[in-house]
Amino acid sequence: MANTDSVKVRVLSLNCWGIRYLSKQCPQRYTMIGDMLCKEEHDIVLLQEVWSEKDYLSLKKKLACSHPHSHYFKSGVIGSGLAIFSIHRIHDTFLFRYSLNGYPYMAHHGDWFGGKAVGMAVLNIGSLTANVYVTHLHAEYCRDKDSYLPHRVVQAWELQQFIRHTSAGADMVILGGDLNMHPEDLGNRLLRSYTGLQDAYLETAKFDGCEDGMTLIADNPFINKKELCPFEKGIRIDYILFKGSFKTDIYCDYMSTTKGSVPNHPFPYSDHEALTAGLRLETHTQTQSDRQPKIKDSAAGKLAALVDIVTEARTEVKVGLHCAEGMRYTATRTGVMGLALLVLELAIAAVPWLALGTEQPFPRTSFYLLAALCFAILLTTFLLYIFYTMELKALQGAEDQMRLAVGSLQEKLRGFPLAQPHNAPRRPPEGHEPSALAPEE
Amino acid sequence: MANTDSVKVRVLSLNCWGIRYLSKQCPQRYTMIGDMLCKEEHDIVLLQEVWSEKDYLSLKKKLACSHPHSHYFKSGVIGSGLAIFSIHRIHDTFLFRYSLNGYPYMAHHGDWFGGKAVGMAVLNIGSLTANVYVTHLHAEYCRDKDSYLPHRVVQAWELQQFIRHTSAGADMVILGGDLNMHPEDLGNRLLRSYTGLQDAYLETAKFDGCEDGMTLIADNPFINKKELCPFEKGIRIDYILFKGSFKTDIYCDYMSTTKGSVPNHPFPYSDHEALTAGLRLETHTQTQSDRQPKIKDSAAGKLAALVDIVTEARTEVKVGLHCAEGMRYTATRTGVMGLALLVLELAIAAVPWLALGTEQPFPRTSFYLLAALCFAILLTTFLLYIFYTMELKALQGAEDQMRLAVGSLQEKLRGFPLAQPHNAPRRPPEGHEPSALAPEE
Repeated sequence: MANTDSVKVRVLSLNCWGIRYLSKQCPQRYTMIGDMLCKEEHDIVLLQEVWSEKDYLSLKKKLACSHPHSHYFKSGVIGSGLAIFSIHRIHDTFLFRYSLNGYPYMAHHGDWFGGKAVGMAVLNIGSLTANVYVTHLHAEYCRDKDSYLPHRVVQAWELQQFIRHTSAGADMVILGGDLNMHPEDLGNRLLRSYTGLQDAYLETAKFDGCEDGMTLIADNPFINKKELCPFEKGIRIDYILFKGSFKTDIYCDYMSTTKGSVPNHPFPYSDHEALTAGLRLETHTQTQSDRQPKIKDSAAGKLAALVDIVTEARTEVKVGLHCAEGMRYTATRTGVMGLALLVLELAIAAVPWLALGTEQPFPRTSFYLLAALCFAILLTTFLLYIFYTMELKALQGAEDQMRLAVGSLQEKLRGFPLAQPHNAPRRPPEGHEPSALAPEE
Repeated sequence: MANTDSVKVRVLSLNCWGIRYLSKQCPQRYTMIGDMLCKEEHDIVLLQEVWSEKDYLSLKKKLACSHPHSHYFKSGVIGSGLAIFSIHRIHDTFLFRYSLNGYPYMAHHGDWFGGKAVGMAVLNIGSLTANVYVTHLHAEYCRDKDSYLPHRVVQAWELQQFIRHTSAGADMVILGGDLNMHPEDLGNRLLRSYTGLQDAYLETAKFDGCEDGMTLIADNPFINKKELCPFEKGIRIDYILFKGSFKTDIYCDYMSTTKGSVPNHPFPYSDHEALTAGLRLETHTQTQSDRQPKIKDSAAGKLAALVDIVTEARTEVKVGLHCAEGMRYTATRTGVMGLALLVLELAIAAVPWLALGTEQPFPRTSFYLLAALCFAILLTTFLLYIFYTMELKALQGAEDQMRLAVGSLQEKLRGFPLAQPHNAPRRPPEGHEPSALAPEE
C-alpha cells in the first residue's frame, strides 16, 4: 500500500497558429516559442498547428539540446500540424486520422486539407510507460449554427476510442491539444467520461492564468473580439488531460496559462494561450483487487451518465446523417439536371442538323459554353456524390459503434444493483483508473 | 503453474467475393455461406468482401439464432467489406482506415473505393477478453511489377501498429483475413515478427485442406488460372493468426480449408477458400516474472531480425516515395503545359481581335474544344496533385515512424549481450506472449 516512487512531469500544450505567410508575426513567434521551450525545459511539449515542416525542423534544431526527442505527424494535404518534443526518449509513435474532417470545398476553413488526427507517442519516464497524445479537432466557426458539430462529435468519439484501446499497457496517459470544444460540450463530456481522463484545470492544486482557465481570450492582440461573441472575455478550448493506471496515482500540482501577452515581448506566442501542467505520479504496490471496491461504488452512476452522453452523441450523429443525405440528394439532383440540360442541348443542336442538313441554327459559342457548363456540373456533382457517400459511411459507422456501445453499457448497468453477474469477478480491470468502462468485464 | 482453465474457440475466415451483379453466382453463394455458418456454429466468423450491406443484413437475419452478435464495418465509398459474426457478445468495436489504399483513378481495380481498413471487436469468451481483428489488404495484381507494394507494406505496418497498441489489455488476439501477401512476403514478416502473432497453418497440430495451406487455388472453378501464374497450383494469402497473453497460452488443435468445391453443391463458397481453425486457450496462474527468462533468451535474435525487416520495409516505402514524387512531378508538369496551352490559345485568339478589330481568324469550334481540353487538364492535374501530396505525406509519415522504430529497436538490442540496462528490469512486459517488442521496456 505504501507509495514507493514519485515522478514529476511538466507538460506544455500550445496551438502555434503557424500558417506561413498568413498568420501574423509567424517567424518571430516561432523564435519566441523556441526560446521559451529551450529555457523552460518542459518534459513533454505538445504543439498543434505547426503547419509547415520547415518550422518543425527549425524548432527541432533549436531544441536539440533541451528536447532531444521529437516527432512530427504527417497527414492530409498540408499535414496534421501536430508535433511532440520530449526530454524522454520516444519509443514508438502511431497516428490515427479522423474519418471526418470538414469539406474540401470549404477551402477558406482549411480544416479538410489539414488532415486532422490524433498522434500518439510512447515514452519511458524512468521505469514508467507514458502514452502521450496530441490532437486538434475541427474548428467551430459559428456556435449557433455549427454545421461541423457532427464531424467534431465523431472526432471526439474516435479520439476516446483510440485512447481507450491503445492505453491499456500504459502507466500514465496524457492528452494535450486544441479540442475546439468548451468544457461541457458534448464531445468533451464523451471523451472525459468514456476514457476516465481528468482535466488538469479542474484537478490542479494551484492555478495561475486566465480567468476560468480560458485559452482563447479577448485580451490577446491576435484575437478578433467579434469572433468570440457571445463570450466576451474568452473561451476554454485547449486542454491538458491525464490519468494514471492501477499501479500509479497521478496528481496535478499546478497549472498555468499565458495571459495574452509575454513579458518583454511585443506580442504573445500565438492567438491561443499556452498551457503548462505540473503532474506528479505516485507508484504504489497496491494490487488491482485492493482498489476494486472503490471503483465499483461509483461505477454504476458513471455508467448511467455515460449511456446518456453516448445517446446524445448518437442523436447528433443522426442529425449529421440526415444533413449529409440531404446534401447527397441535392448533388444527385443537380447532376441529373446537368445531364438533362446536356441531352436537351444535344437534341436541339442535332435535330435540325439531322433534318435540315447543313443549316445550323444553334449559335456555336453558346453551344460550346453550355456544353462546358454541363460537363462541369456533371463532374462536380459526381465528385460531391462520392464525397458525401464517404461522409455517410463514416457517420453510419460511428452511429453503429455508438449503438453497440450503448447496448453493451446498458447490459453492464443491468448487472449493477444486484450481485455481480456470473462473469464479472473473473476478469481484472484493464489496468486503469476508475474510468466508467474499465472496471467491469 | 498449474493450468486452471481451458477454452476452445473455433474461428472461420472467408473472403466472400461479394460484388453484387459482378461476382459469379453471388446470391447462391451467400445462401450456401449462410447455411454453412448456421450449421457449423463457429464461435467467431470473420468475413471479407461483403461489399453490399444488404448481403450482410440478410446473413445477419439468417444467423440470428446461431450468431446473435455481429458487426459490419463501414468505410470508404462502397464500404470496407468487413463483417464479424460471433456467438459471444461483442462489447466494443473500432475501425482503423489505412492511410494508403491504391488510386481512385484505377477504378477497374476498385481497391480505393473499398476503403480498406482493419476492424476490431472486443469479445468476452467466458472470463477472457478476446480482441478479434478482421482485415483485407490491397490486392496484388501483378507480382513482378507490383505498383501497389509500398501501399501494402504501409498497410501491413499500420496493421501491426494497430494490433500491437490496441491489444495490451487482451487475453487473446485473433486476426483473420485476406492479407493479399504470400507467407514470406515482407508485410507478412513485418506483421508476424512485430506483433508476435502466430500463423495457425504453421502451428496447427492437425491440418486438412489444400496443399501448402493454399487459399487461392487453380482447382477453384471461379479462378482464372492465368492470373495465378507462375504459381500453378495456387497461393496462400488468407490467414488466421493468433497469440495469447502473459496469463494465457494458446494452441491451434486443428486447421482446415475448403478444397475448391463444396460437397453436394455445384460451386464453392467463393473464389477464395474458407479457413477454419480450432484454437485452445489455457489459462495459467503463472506470473510474468516466472516467464521472463524464457522470453529473454530468444528476444535478442528476434529483435535483430525485426530491425532487418523494418529496414527492408523502410526501403520499400522509400521506393514508393520516389514513385509518388515522380507522379506528382508529372502531374505538375502536365498542369503547367495545360496552362501554357490555354495562355497561348487566348493570346492567339485575343491578339488579332485586339489588333485588327472584328476579323476572327481562330475557328470557333477549335477554340472552344481546345479551351475545354485545357480546363480539363488543369482540373485533373490539380486533383492529382492534391492526391499525390496526400500519398506522399502518408508515405513520409510511415517512413518516419519506421526510422524511429529502428532506432528504438537498435537501442534495445545494444543492451542485450551485456547485463540488462538500468531501466530494463523495472517494467514488466505489456502482458503478451514473446513478441520481439513486448519483453523489454
